[in-house]
Amino acid sequence: MKIEIDHIGIALHSINSALNFYQQLLGIDKSDEEILEERGIKVAFLYVNDVRIELMEPIREDSEISNFLQKRGEGFHHIAYKVDDIEKVFEKSQELGYRTLSDKPTIGAEGNLVFFLHPKSANGILTEFVQHINE
Amino acid sequence: MKIEIDHIGIALHSINSALNFYQQLLGIDKSDEEILEERGIKVAFLYVNDVRIELMEPIREDSEISNFLQKRGEGFHHIAYKVDDIEKVFEKSQELGYRTLSDKPTIGAEGNLVFFLHPKSANGILTEFVQHINE
Repeated sequence: MKIEIDHIGIALHSINSALNFYQQLLGIDKSDEEILEERGIKVAFLYVNDVRIELMEPIREDSEISNFLQKRGEGFHHIAYKVDDIEKVFEKSQELGYRTLSDKPTIGAEGNLVFFLHPKSANGILTEFVQHINE
Repeated sequence: MKIEIDHIGIALHSINSALNFYQQLLGIDKSDEEILEERGIKVAFLYVNDVRIELMEPIREDSEISNFLQKRGEGFHHIAYKVDDIEKVFEKSQELGYRTLSDKPTIGAEGNLVFFLHPKSANGILTEFVQHINE
């Protein structure tokens, strides 16, 4: 199976406040911001060689990262692996008794298929799998 | 300036217990383990396209990750960026008032030059910079 790191998600109170670091220190430009209304977050992507860094900022108090920010503060949120057969990875996860956050892969950002493993099943790391559909 | 993600460090109670996930689920093999006596840790690397995942396990109670494991448990520990001019990144960090964990780049694993930024200066993420010397 082909596997790559697709992106690393970082939870922030403010995307803008993080840009000093990425733009001024590292010289990396961010993409345009995108509002994901349903998830209650705003995201922007940075590109570092083939890996994207997803900056995530809440736009309302019950967003999917608000709880995380309250408990742990800003920082690393999740890692996403790009795979070419997400159904197979999902089935294998279930065989191994891993805890998935949905009962099958679902449509995520950009129409791609995604599912998440609970950190307890992935060495303390919230882990996303994504299969790109439009490639 | 050229910049790439060099590796992602993961703190674990046991490297072996993590291999189910990486080997059985993802089909990724690990490197041989290496003991870093001075830092009190054992490490192994996994290769996912061009990014390495560094699995870190303490070999004594006062290792550099023991405190982290006690406080936060297993999980994401740091991200390392590979740069081609680490002195420049270090100087720029100081100009921006960022908190570095040493007063200059030092010799790290494999004889490479490294320095770390405190999470408070890098969006909550312990951030390493590395310049490979033997390339």
